[in-house]
Amino acid sequence: MKVVVQKFGGSSVANLERMRQVQEKVERKLNKGYKVVAVLSAMSGETDRLLNLAEDFSSRPDTDELDTLLCTGEQTSTALFSMLMRDKDIKTRSVQGFQIPVHTDSFFGKSRIRNISSDNLLNLLNDYDVLAVAGFQGCDQDQRLTTLGRGGSDTSAVALAAALDAELCEIFSDVDGVFTTDPNVCMQAQKMNRIAYDEMLEMASMGAKVLQIRSVEFAKKYNVPVHVRSTFNDIPGTLLVQEDNNMEGALVSGIAYDKNQARITLVNVFDQPGIASKVFNPLADAGIVVDMIVQNFSKENKTDITFTVSKGELEKALEIIEETKDEIGAVDILSDTNVAKVSVIGVGMRNHSGVAGIAFKALDKENINIMIISTSEIKISCLVEEKYTELAVRTLHEAFELDKSNSESMET
Amino acid sequence: MKVVVQKFGGSSVANLERMRQVQEKVERKLNKGYKVVAVLSAMSGETDRLLNLAEDFSSRPDTDELDTLLCTGEQTSTALFSMLMRDKDIKTRSVQGFQIPVHTDSFFGKSRIRNISSDNLLNLLNDYDVLAVAGFQGCDQDQRLTTLGRGGSDTSAVALAAALDAELCEIFSDVDGVFTTDPNVCMQAQKMNRIAYDEMLEMASMGAKVLQIRSVEFAKKYNVPVHVRSTFNDIPGTLLVQEDNNMEGALVSGIAYDKNQARITLVNVFDQPGIASKVFNPLADAGIVVDMIVQNFSKENKTDITFTVSKGELEKALEIIEETKDEIGAVDILSDTNVAKVSVIGVGMRNHSGVAGIAFKALDKENINIMIISTSEIKISCLVEEKYTELAVRTLHEAFELDKSNSESMET
Repeated sequence: MKVVVQKFGGSSVANLERMRQVQEKVERKLNKGYKVVAVLSAMSGETDRLLNLAEDFSSRPDTDELDTLLCTGEQTSTALFSMLMRDKDIKTRSVQGFQIPVHTDSFFGKSRIRNISSDNLLNLLNDYDVLAVAGFQGCDQDQRLTTLGRGGSDTSAVALAAALDAELCEIFSDVDGVFTTDPNVCMQAQKMNRIAYDEMLEMASMGAKVLQIRSVEFAKKYNVPVHVRSTFNDIPGTLLVQEDNNMEGALVSGIAYDKNQARITLVNVFDQPGIASKVFNPLADAGIVVDMIVQNFSKENKTDITFTVSKGELEKALEIIEETKDEIGAVDILSDTNVAKVSVIGVGMRNHSGVAGIAFKALDKENINIMIISTSEIKISCLVEEKYTELAVRTLHEAFELDKSNSESMET
Repeated sequence: MKVVVQKFGGSSVANLERMRQVQEKVERKLNKGYKVVAVLSAMSGETDRLLNLAEDFSSRPDTDELDTLLCTGEQTSTALFSMLMRDKDIKTRSVQGFQIPVHTDSFFGKSRIRNISSDNLLNLLNDYDVLAVAGFQGCDQDQRLTTLGRGGSDTSAVALAAALDAELCEIFSDVDGVFTTDPNVCMQAQKMNRIAYDEMLEMASMGAKVLQIRSVEFAKKYNVPVHVRSTFNDIPGTLLVQEDNNMEGALVSGIAYDKNQARITLVNVFDQPGIASKVFNPLADAGIVVDMIVQNFSKENKTDITFTVSKGELEKALEIIEETKDEIGAVDILSDTNVAKVSVIGVGMRNHSGVAGIAFKALDKENINIMIISTSEIKISCLVEEKYTELAVRTLHEAFELDKSNSESMET
């Protein structure tokens, strides 16, 4: 049995007309001899409608009941889509998360998939040509309904593709694919034909608009080819795959940025073992995600530690740091929300030196001051003043010649 | 553990304000030391909204997908109600039909409950004071969602009360209780304090506005005391109970009517064994419900058979009868939609003669011609010309002195 998973986001199933377009895309795969698992989101606007309703009934609705409420969204989409398909005599059935079942943990509102049993689905695929599966949702061990967080349908789709050993997982949404950078910031941004899972993970801050990042982790783990493409045209999108030799040719694949960063600098702290854990463990305990961390070479047993957190968590982070201020010997705590992170990403840089040099030179040419630098095997990130974000992105995009058109073609 | 089941219909949970009234009613029971199972319908208008949506997507939506769609209605009510209760720190949880589970057959859209496991619910009642249970729905053996038909939440409530051995099942709706007849037809109609299950079953045609009749069968079978009452006031309603000695005092409890009747007469059919089955088996096979059946004494081995079906099924019934016309020797087939059934109901008539006489005399006094008479142990039904329906109801109501106030009081 040849199986393909196709995921359609909220705007793709927003109404009857849109669902007819989805129907066409599913039929095209049927005509090629595939069984289709169509993973559907709630109709555009429905989730917000339900959230607003919940707010009327409770000042702080609990996440377990919110999940039960939100799950009605995809349930509605799948039932309606199944009706539409059957009206054309296509053997279709709606399937809810708990019916598969998609077993998750019990962290309502942001559950993680524990396992997906493929038995039920494979049996159903013997009887039906199309399964309209509710994305975004699962159930915990008590059969309570859970949701995977915003964008969770992407993860549902990839996880189902992995469980069913599908040939391909197509993610349809209102974007054409993954771009070398944000087209709203840089008009020269190019759609990538291929991107490695690892690159996509590093593009998270931008990729999140295209794909829930957890789905990429799944795709990487189970080696699921994922094709990110638009519902509204037939142009091939971007294929997420394992890193291949082909990719090493390009030094850099894309430029990402993240304005949701705030900088904290601890001035003149003791440079001695255990200091870092005294700073960062309390933050981790409070659930604050620390992104970039830089510690400079020390002078006179004192050093500065700088790190970034998301803007929304700055205040809470500062409160926590204040409590350890004396213990770590900080003479001052500085913070700044007027910053942004700009990253150069590419698996190619694993085998090539010189990428950092090109990046710094390009930023320097525009007189953009780099506050912090942090690097990984396939990424170089620079913290810059927020107002320079767009300029930095465009400059780097040009410096790495990402505006050159990507001519590789893909089968639609 | 003292458990009470309270069922709230669509108008009782129509919006936030209404749900607050429901909350009060639940709290009152909590304060008396009960655990409460609140069985909720979809918010008023929601089911119709979903049905209209389905019609947009399919000219004839299949009932299985319709059920999946409709089940979102109660799911929404239960989640919102649970949020509301928790906002007042009352330990509450929403429970869907499939989570209990309420196992049904697979006749989507009109499923019947096969069994309800009480284990899950009893466990939950240890942890929670209130369970907000989705009425109307269950699941079949494949875990597909099913619904019990319009008014099915009543049956859910009574069945849950039976499974949990609840002290009482309260059915809240927008009516004050069961009346001696339709108050819209007869201003003298009185609310009954008590009614026997059997009487309620016979009042089906009227009772259906108050209570899904299948719920009464459940209540009778498991001897569940059911209190039918209004959400919008605290006046005691009508208690459905086993027939008791008290009831035998009254000859007649109520007058029912049903305008949805059509009469068919087969003229001069052979009066020989097997004729009735030749007439009625094909109708039953086609799912047509035959109500009154009358066969007169025969002359010259020929007889007339008259029966009634619902108006909507008349045409189909006539088509079927036409096919057997020759075989049964009918010289003519007559039909009339201009008829209504008026019934006098009361368990008291089991032990008293003379009820029929009083009824016929009252109708005769008003010159209302009786076309067909059919009787059961506790009911006398007469088919009359439709235009006389209201007059017949009022006349019979008066003849049996049902306008005399019912002074028995009940605890609220």
